[in-house]
Amino acid sequence: VTTARLEAFSDNVFTIAATLLVLNIAVPPLTSRQGLASALGHEWPSFVAYALSFATIGIIWINHHAMVRRLKAVDHTVHILNLALLMTVGILPFTTALMATYLKSGHGEHLAAAIYAGSFLVMGIAFQVMQRHVALRKTDLLAVELTDAERRAIVNRSALGLPPYLLATVIAIISPYATLALCGLLAAFYALPRTTADRRCA
Amino acid sequence: VTTARLEAFSDNVFTIAATLLVLNIAVPPLTSRQGLASALGHEWPSFVAYALSFATIGIIWINHHAMVRRLKAVDHTVHILNLALLMTVGILPFTTALMATYLKSGHGEHLAAAIYAGSFLVMGIAFQVMQRHVALRKTDLLAVELTDAERRAIVNRSALGLPPYLLATVIAIISPYATLALCGLLAAFYALPRTTADRRCA
Amino acid sequence: VTTARLEAFSDNVFTIAATLLVLNIAVPPLTSRQGLASALGHEWPSFVAYALSFATIGIIWINHHAMVRRLKAVDHTVHILNLALLMTVGILPFTTALMATYLKSGHGEHLAAAIYAGSFLVMGIAFQVMQRHVALRKTDLLAVELTDAERRAIVNRSALGLPPYLLATVIAIISPYATLALCGLLAAFYALPRTTADRRCA
Amino acid sequence: VTTARLEAFSDNVFTIAATLLVLNIAVPPLTSRQGLASALGHEWPSFVAYALSFATIGIIWINHHAMVRRLKAVDHTVHILNLALLMTVGILPFTTALMATYLKSGHGEHLAAAIYAGSFLVMGIAFQVMQRHVALRKTDLLAVELTDAERRAIVNRSALGLPPYLLATVIAIISPYATLALCGLLAAFYALPRTTADRRCA
Repeated sequence: VTTARLEAFSDNVFTIAATLLVLNIAVPPLTSRQGLASALGHEWPSFVAYALSFATIGIIWINHHAMVRRLKAVDHTVHILNLALLMTVGILPFTTALMATYLKSGHGEHLAAAIYAGSFLVMGIAFQVMQRHVALRKTDLLAVELTDAERRAIVNRSALGLPPYLLATVIAIISPYATLALCGLLAAFYALPRTTADRRCA
Repeated sequence: VTTARLEAFSDNVFTIAATLLVLNIAVPPLTSRQGLASALGHEWPSFVAYALSFATIGIIWINHHAMVRRLKAVDHTVHILNLALLMTVGILPFTTALMATYLKSGHGEHLAAAIYAGSFLVMGIAFQVMQRHVALRKTDLLAVELTDAERRAIVNRSALGLPPYLLATVIAIISPYATLALCGLLAAFYALPRTTADRRCA
Repeated sequence: VTTARLEAFSDNVFTIAATLLVLNIAVPPLTSRQGLASALGHEWPSFVAYALSFATIGIIWINHHAMVRRLKAVDHTVHILNLALLMTVGILPFTTALMATYLKSGHGEHLAAAIYAGSFLVMGIAFQVMQRHVALRKTDLLAVELTDAERRAIVNRSALGLPPYLLATVIAIISPYATLALCGLLAAFYALPRTTADRRCA
Repeated sequence: VTTARLEAFSDNVFTIAATLLVLNIAVPPLTSRQGLASALGHEWPSFVAYALSFATIGIIWINHHAMVRRLKAVDHTVHILNLALLMTVGILPFTTALMATYLKSGHGEHLAAAIYAGSFLVMGIAFQVMQRHVALRKTDLLAVELTDAERRAIVNRSALGLPPYLLATVIAIISPYATLALCGLLAAFYALPRTTADRRCA
């Protein structure tokens, strides 16, 4: 029951954060002098940001699901680490709006893109910290018995996403568009059908 | 458990999207020179759009419920297809606001109505893709054994809504009001009590 | 399982509508010339409206819970009636904001209060329609066997709230404050501890 | 089932309130003359307020979870007390925005900080009232049999947070920053790993 409620609480934050993203897409004002098609076209960063952040939240949710499914109980530290992770998820509607607003503005776009990819990186780190806690330190919470090698493989797999997101953050200094492209590639990579080998240690 | 969590996640997105629709109905500003009754009357597209989108989200939720109920397990591809479907649901508060804002504006109303019906069409296509995956390709995920004919009937039934929504999208070139009326008729049709024949292959 | 998902879907709408109410309470602008205490004091209709609508949504949720708990299955009509009920719940953040904005404005306050109480009335009617369907017409959906008298008592109890809310709506012609007071009394009445007699037919 | 639905309803309010907090963090306007980094730096109270309120909601959720887990059934009074508690949770996005907006404004900051800490205090009191009801008065609702001393220990533990939050409220007269620091310390204290002694009467 405890695991179930942690899941329910987490699911809520993931889905609310994902659904709030739509509030960042503005209806072009009726008074705008350009036509609606043109106004919507100029807003493309908002649409890309919506799709990218929605997909990334969805993917972290699937991974979170896999992590929590392995647990049979939850201790206070798991609750707190989970809250920290959810806090990094809850901020994404802001970092998404920031990136979408500044991408084409001609000033601040490098910082905005770095904050955007950086918020994914921080989320990945919070995920990794929680993963390490349940897979390596508090193994008595695990529902299924896993060998040391299996548990280490799980943790390493979680860590695989961190360097690319770090790269996406740093590359914003050169080009915010490169940041966006890299985040998109990462989301697409995680959405790909997984091989059996992957699934075995998932 | 896995199916349960996919359901919970999806339910959240459906309900949050439906409930966020109300944010698109603006309280007339106190400074408006016309009376409140008149101001609210002028806002009728917002009310119609709220009811129409809420009903359409509700109906797709009922269908989603029926689809997921047939599954006993979920694979990575189902998760990803479901995320894609939810992404099309999550954008509806935007397309609804767009249509409501532009319907009477005298410019952009054709495009806004096409985008509105088009977002329902895209949602229907995403639903159909997921339906095909679970009913035709990944039949080992099904909880109940179904004959080939039954599975094909399920898929065909899901596809029935696509041509009318395509028509509603195209007809916006002629009249955005026709688009709205057609979407309303479709929602009413799906809300009608189902016949026993329908229910048998539901 | 089906009842569970109808409950989950409904719970979401009830809670999201209740929690969105807070968005109607504006932070006084920093540029306002009056002090913060005075600015917040002038906003009292927003606070009263928040508490009143939150409580009323909470109470309808408790009643909804009692109604659905009696069911063992759900048919298409129940789904549709439930959606109609939820649509009336989902609009409450708007009617609440409308009432709070216009209550002290000197124009439109009668209409705004009538719409506010009227939205509770419409919600009550939607609830009553659903209650009648499950308690009187579709008795095969009931989990527990109930006598005719018990089922009629349930329906009548649901109907008890309608005349007071009708009165609250009509009385807005005379005084919007009377409407507010009556809605407050009704919420307080439903929040009172129930007698054993009440509980027996609940 | 009844306890489960109370939990689900409460979880929703906790998570929606927590996730709505992000809406209070404004994207700096493109027209601002200072750079983006500087504009975001000036907004630090919004970021601190987000983290602090999110953490505090998370902690009250963990405590709520522990309280409800002890119940095997729910009566009308529990529902009403829970609704009152949730109403105090639902208002937090407003009090958080108020504090973040006024903290550095040079006027109203003392009142805003007092309202902020005061809203945590009121939430704590509502929690304590509900805790007393289920642990002391309605002991037949408890799932596990507890001795008088154990039940009293539970109630006393819930009450421990009230004096510090009262202090945080009162201290706002002297310094809103002291209020913020104290609220932060309290959140950090509750997030600390618990000792076995603590856990025994949890």
